[in-house]
Amino acid sequence: MLSWVEVPPGCDFPLENLPYGAFERNGRVRIGVAIGDFVFDLGAAADAGLFDGFTEREIVSAPNLDRLLATSRPTWRRLRGRIVELLSASSPIAGNGSQYVVAQRDVQMRMPFTVGDYVDFYSSLEHATNMGKILRPGGEPLLPNWRHIPIGYHGRSSTVVIDGTPVRRPRGQRKPPDATLPVFAPTAALDIELEVGFVTGGHTDFGIPLPIDRVDEHIFGFVLVNDWSARDIQAWEYQPLGPFLGKSFATSISAWVVTLEALEPYRVAGAAQDPQPLPYLRGEQPYNFDVHLQAELRTARMDAPEIIARTNFREMYWSAAQQLAHVTSNGSNIQPGDLYASGTISGPAERSYGSLMELTWRGQRPLKLRSGEARGFLEDGDVVTLRGWAKTEGKPRIGFGRVCGEILPA
Amino acid sequence: MLSWVEVPPGCDFPLENLPYGAFERNGRVRIGVAIGDFVFDLGAAADAGLFDGFTEREIVSAPNLDRLLATSRPTWRRLRGRIVELLSASSPIAGNGSQYVVAQRDVQMRMPFTVGDYVDFYSSLEHATNMGKILRPGGEPLLPNWRHIPIGYHGRSSTVVIDGTPVRRPRGQRKPPDATLPVFAPTAALDIELEVGFVTGGHTDFGIPLPIDRVDEHIFGFVLVNDWSARDIQAWEYQPLGPFLGKSFATSISAWVVTLEALEPYRVAGAAQDPQPLPYLRGEQPYNFDVHLQAELRTARMDAPEIIARTNFREMYWSAAQQLAHVTSNGSNIQPGDLYASGTISGPAERSYGSLMELTWRGQRPLKLRSGEARGFLEDGDVVTLRGWAKTEGKPRIGFGRVCGEILPA
Repeated sequence: MLSWVEVPPGCDFPLENLPYGAFERNGRVRIGVAIGDFVFDLGAAADAGLFDGFTEREIVSAPNLDRLLATSRPTWRRLRGRIVELLSASSPIAGNGSQYVVAQRDVQMRMPFTVGDYVDFYSSLEHATNMGKILRPGGEPLLPNWRHIPIGYHGRSSTVVIDGTPVRRPRGQRKPPDATLPVFAPTAALDIELEVGFVTGGHTDFGIPLPIDRVDEHIFGFVLVNDWSARDIQAWEYQPLGPFLGKSFATSISAWVVTLEALEPYRVAGAAQDPQPLPYLRGEQPYNFDVHLQAELRTARMDAPEIIARTNFREMYWSAAQQLAHVTSNGSNIQPGDLYASGTISGPAERSYGSLMELTWRGQRPLKLRSGEARGFLEDGDVVTLRGWAKTEGKPRIGFGRVCGEILPA
Repeated sequence: MLSWVEVPPGCDFPLENLPYGAFERNGRVRIGVAIGDFVFDLGAAADAGLFDGFTEREIVSAPNLDRLLATSRPTWRRLRGRIVELLSASSPIAGNGSQYVVAQRDVQMRMPFTVGDYVDFYSSLEHATNMGKILRPGGEPLLPNWRHIPIGYHGRSSTVVIDGTPVRRPRGQRKPPDATLPVFAPTAALDIELEVGFVTGGHTDFGIPLPIDRVDEHIFGFVLVNDWSARDIQAWEYQPLGPFLGKSFATSISAWVVTLEALEPYRVAGAAQDPQPLPYLRGEQPYNFDVHLQAELRTARMDAPEIIARTNFREMYWSAAQQLAHVTSNGSNIQPGDLYASGTISGPAERSYGSLMELTWRGQRPLKLRSGEARGFLEDGDVVTLRGWAKTEGKPRIGFGRVCGEILPA
């Protein structure tokens, strides 16, 4: 598909993608979609009446996606169809469309939506197995419930931040192995978690589960997620109620929300599940996605980032559909803007692990970087960037952009 | 202090209390304060200009407390001072004030605020000890971290519901002790947790901790909380990431938010803490409150409820101040409407336990009710009501009203 906006080869944002985001320009925040190196300003287009008859102006002229997320899939499809029409080479505005586009380098991206509930899963078999081997050496790596339940927990919504936000090294309680008492100090085990999350739209009623074959109605799109973790704080606090301050200091998401529609061509079946899940977790359609993922690290001494991990979202054992069906199986309701992260995505190979905990085996085998430096966990001044893109033979490449964050000293 | 509104003896809502809530009447939702058996309609008073010069009309004319919570303590003090003035016997509106009050029985209460992040603590020593004895018999009841950290976890905000909302028995995965595989079925171990929560107001910046001696700036007020729990679902899911669907199906709060100002006269020192907490958890002022609490159960066969537990909020080991200082110690920011629940409040005596798990020792010693029935856990049709009130010699009684919920069949 061709657009009248130039799309450089290999760009994350061809006409087939059109992810949504919120951007600030001249002091005003509006929503737009990414196309090539530009943003198509949906608010400006709405002001000009270009969405009249397709969706309400107030939904598209808003400063974030909240109003759009509060509608439902028919509206999302209609709006997307109209945007494709307006941006395609044969568009009626192709000749004078430049007034509606602005270069991405001239805008500041803002949080695309208000986060409702934030849930983080633990759905990669390789990650859960690695963590079991590291934390309970000698024992059975997977706990008995893992192959029956998409294990997860609620995280903190107020600290979900956008790509580019610096992350201050958190202080917290930790108990050094040789100490009898805990100390309160900056974390010495600051880690990343390479994840993909999905964002919900629409509402369901309190007390009413959402069947797995209806999750399409509420999964609006996907973002990259870096679930920053302080492993020493987490280790001391997590019994018996789970991760808390070791996670809650920051979670970064990409600026662009890639829609379910854009990802449709990259849907793939997940790994075979053994044992077969209970009926409420068995869906008709595949719900994994062939999305390549990579983590890059740039230390203060490096000129360019170094790739430290490559993996793929298709590796997930529990799918997004199973996660959402599970969360709502007890009657929990869905609200617009809820964010569900996959949990760390690790593949079978060592350099496919999505956390430093696994890449360095709890810091015991530090990464040797091209700069001559070594890393067990993150140091101040380190910049971590996660990227994701779908690229399957015969189909265009579409990407998520990036989620990036620099570590500031405590 | 006397009001021109009649306050019956023993009522929860004298002029010294004035808790805030949101109420619907004739299809319109506004905020008000409880006084006697009435609601003082803040929106109507604002429309008449009675708050001009004290606070902005749009804050007081709103359909919930969100805008008020987004301001700060000086505004809260000023508004409270003005409401006291307007409702006192010497008020300029004493003669014609009836236009601003409406009987509580003529209104429907609504969620008082939009819940931001919801955190549930585990801060009662007796409760944590009992749970340890029940779940790990023979071992040390308290885990090594418990006396160092206010242990807690993030819960689900979308399922925080107001007093009176029926609660549907959740379905979920559980593994019966004699089974090899889990089943998906209605919980057979539905429980209550008797708690008190605090609601925050104002904002703090991402990455900046709130020192313990400044928590007064952000603790707006307190509510009763019933943290409904499905013990069998919880037992199967909670390793290693903590409670999830066993808790997330419903959390009920009282309709009225009792302000920190109203509770000031009932501030008491907490229990001595041994070992002494780390410096960031040591506050100058006491932060426990002498609030009597009770849980009542009415089964479908009863004419009147039976009290099943009595305890006191002053029993908490970790105070609200310590909880908030802890949560923000890693840089987590505060937003208006965040809700922090105490965790189950249990006293030392058997009938002072705040959950059926403890009252019946995991169902092994069912409660014998006056109706001749027995209860291990809740049955369909059971109605649980929690009440709380402060009453110290020489001071007026102020109360929280109630939080009540009926169990509907799965």
